Amino acid sequence: MPILERHLGLYTDHYELTMAQGYLLSGRKDTPACFDYFFRKNPFNGGYVVFAGLSDLLDLLENLCFDEEDCRYLKSIGFDARFVEYLKGFRFTADIYAPEEGEIVFPYEPVVRVEGNIIESQIIETMLLNILNFESLIATKASRMRQAAVDRLLIDFGLRRAQGTGGILASRAAVIGGLDGTSNVYSAFMYGLKSAGTQAHSWVQTFDDEIDAFRTFAELMPERCVLLADTYDTLRSGIPNAIIVAKEMEQRGERLFGVRLDSGDLAALSRKARKMLDNAGLNYVRIMSSNQLDEYAIRELLAGGAPIDAFGIGTKLVTGQADAALDGVYKLSMSGGRPRLKISETPEKIILPGVKNVLRFVDAEGSFYSDCIALHDEGRPDKIYGIRDSDKGMAAAAFNSENLFHKVMERGKKAAGKRTPSEISGYVRSRLGRLRDACKRFDSPEVYNVGLSGRLRDLRATLIDEAVKKAGGR
Amino acid sequence: MPILERHLGLYTDHYELTMAQGYLLSGRKDTPACFDYFFRKNPFNGGYVVFAGLSDLLDLLENLCFDEEDCRYLKSIGFDARFVEYLKGFRFTADIYAPEEGEIVFPYEPVVRVEGNIIESQIIETMLLNILNFESLIATKASRMRQAAVDRLLIDFGLRRAQGTGGILASRAAVIGGLDGTSNVYSAFMYGLKSAGTQAHSWVQTFDDEIDAFRTFAELMPERCVLLADTYDTLRSGIPNAIIVAKEMEQRGERLFGVRLDSGDLAALSRKARKMLDNAGLNYVRIMSSNQLDEYAIRELLAGGAPIDAFGIGTKLVTGQADAALDGVYKLSMSGGRPRLKISETPEKIILPGVKNVLRFVDAEGSFYSDCIALHDEGRPDKIYGIRDSDKGMAAAAFNSENLFHKVMERGKKAAGKRTPSEISGYVRSRLGRLRDACKRFDSPEVYNVGLSGRLRDLRATLIDEAVKKAGGR
Repeated sequence: MPILERHLGLYTDHYELTMAQGYLLSGRKDTPACFDYFFRKNPFNGGYVVFAGLSDLLDLLENLCFDEEDCRYLKSIGFDARFVEYLKGFRFTADIYAPEEGEIVFPYEPVVRVEGNIIESQIIETMLLNILNFESLIATKASRMRQAAVDRLLIDFGLRRAQGTGGILASRAAVIGGLDGTSNVYSAFMYGLKSAGTQAHSWVQTFDDEIDAFRTFAELMPERCVLLADTYDTLRSGIPNAIIVAKEMEQRGERLFGVRLDSGDLAALSRKARKMLDNAGLNYVRIMSSNQLDEYAIRELLAGGAPIDAFGIGTKLVTGQADAALDGVYKLSMSGGRPRLKISETPEKIILPGVKNVLRFVDAEGSFYSDCIALHDEGRPDKIYGIRDSDKGMAAAAFNSENLFHKVMERGKKAAGKRTPSEISGYVRSRLGRLRDACKRFDSPEVYNVGLSGRLRDLRATLIDEAVKKAGGR
Repeated sequence: MPILERHLGLYTDHYELTMAQGYLLSGRKDTPACFDYFFRKNPFNGGYVVFAGLSDLLDLLENLCFDEEDCRYLKSIGFDARFVEYLKGFRFTADIYAPEEGEIVFPYEPVVRVEGNIIESQIIETMLLNILNFESLIATKASRMRQAAVDRLLIDFGLRRAQGTGGILASRAAVIGGLDGTSNVYSAFMYGLKSAGTQAHSWVQTFDDEIDAFRTFAELMPERCVLLADTYDTLRSGIPNAIIVAKEMEQRGERLFGVRLDSGDLAALSRKARKMLDNAGLNYVRIMSSNQLDEYAIRELLAGGAPIDAFGIGTKLVTGQADAALDGVYKLSMSGGRPRLKISETPEKIILPGVKNVLRFVDAEGSFYSDCIALHDEGRPDKIYGIRDSDKGMAAAAFNSENLFHKVMERGKKAAGKRTPSEISGYVRSRLGRLRDACKRFDSPEVYNVGLSGRLRDLRATLIDEAVKKAGGR
């Protein structure tokens, strides 16, 4: 990951360090443990999540350490000298299993599994959640915008409204989810994305006349030149001036790339602008629009036949509105060789115990049929039981299955090569193509089935019984 | 600002650089310009914004430059060699005027004014918006939570759900807005915040019995020890076990700091837990709660008499839900010595021309009465005109006035010393205390009056007339 080059060890919640200290001081630093990352609710009332952020996370974990300054600081705020000494030599040496970045994943199934000693696997909780929750949120949002925009050009314009430097990850995740490029030069540089931009109102304002602003811009920078049409009056001034300049460009053997509409009724303005451009013989000049767009606005504009060729999307993309956060959690499922449970006052918060894998069952056409969470050391389950309603089993024998989990980190070292955001984006496209349309609807999507193996179901039931007896016996 | 130590110049939108190149190549690099930062809508349907992020922004601007790698990259993506050469020597040398960080500010009034050459003042747009929009959003959200929680302890637990590294700024802004501390160790280290934390379910789960988990934790780390009560059953297991451990601590001359409730009906559970603790003679043990809290939930819990002493607040604080972004913009108001205007298809998007100051009129009791935007070179206005309905003037002579704008950067160097987040937080508290309650209501707050001087009103009218004539004359 291109930021957070230093003080990585401090990028955590205070309690992770408190607990790590507790594990060390109670002589349990080498206790083996397993944690699962999973989420409980699809964002945007949607039917799926695009898993993103893995590569950034692995970069951070490979470099995770506590330097002298970090250690001095931790001592100064009250951590035990023995623990601080331990941190000086700390490196992350656990194994991590996960689907490929860009995989389509669903509520309640493990998305990442971390196996290591209890300290290293605990201490990374905050960092893991921070990166994966956010990038997955934005990649998912972007995939919805791509769905709405079909084949139109989609550019991320969000950095100015992004949540601080979170915008750096947002632009990466946006491309993974299906955007074509970004205005964010920093992310373009760091992640190898395509960067792009048009012009601002201020450029136009600094000239006494709009036509001079357009003409100067086009003369100096004729390549992929986009003129912003709404500084004074889109149809009476912006478009007519853009047409004059486009004609001048033609005489130089150049072509105006597009005009941008940034306010007003984009449906009506784009239609009128298109007609004016076409009447001037400029049918190749693209119409780009921006201004508070999201997947619903894009879909409505296109469904109404608005002749818009490109969209600049900002705030609602990079902040993942209306949700702003994926509710992913990181829960202990095994320690000291024993599967572990948590019950909680809220039934949805009960977790699945044991070291687990996720299998995806696929029908004859290659469509995703159902996912099944199973214990890592059992064979392919022949039945899939509902996560809550776990009496009814669904026969799975007729389907092909894939193991979603691959070892992506081995003893703290990345186990696979890095793919570019655009490669990951291609993977998202191909995987989403295999998810049935009903699960991709914006409105009341069908719930994709995620179930349990019989063995996992039975293990959970046994552990709940034990825990309830223990609590009740008091 | 503690992150973004390198490649600062690239932390911008592509079009800022395109326009800067245009200014250079058209021979206008030294044209003087003035930009205003302002927003149009209070977030959270509230009545004000807490201005935050200034200190981080000034840090970035002092260090803003383009290193060799940045320049190579920009050349590789098509920027002109002459422009890239110019960037090699680029430093930010403009003047910046702003209120003190922590000031209470309102829609449509300039919050920051940048005066420099057109290139340097244009190029920082994205960075300025990115930092100020986000920190102001979160400081505002935090101030609402402080209002709801009155004097209860409020700790930011949000990093795991924050928007990537945006969480670093969020924790700072949260403290500015009124939080007492944060779980985010990185921000605590970087900004000198108080860091704090309790324990996770995983700690409890790794022990075969909850009581052992509590006992070990309390023995190893008795200071400010908070036990998490809901891993198995809050009232039948968690609280009884915490009571046993608290009694054991008493025998060692220690005191249990608190218990944390993290699921279920917090109102009912806290009441029952309080009773159990009190019956055991543990009235000093605090009850802390967490789990999807925001200002409304906190207010409702306390209004219902829930005996909760401390709140851990996460997602909704650090992502600024339900809004997730402040709509701040950065608009050119003067260039080449001439006031500049933009009209747009959307009336709200018309901007105020000219180099401006903001005056705050204050009544005899010291309460904020009205703000007035005026040209920087006019005296104290005697009447304040409505921003839209600008015929009626309100007499201002009877009030005292403050100039909100101070020079915070002079020729690219910070003009004032740095204050800590907790000092800024004190300023927020004192300033909010002078804003009338009606403007701080969560539900339909009164709109605080922001008006114009007569001279500014007239200047705007003249420029709109000119622009309309020009566009219409085509």
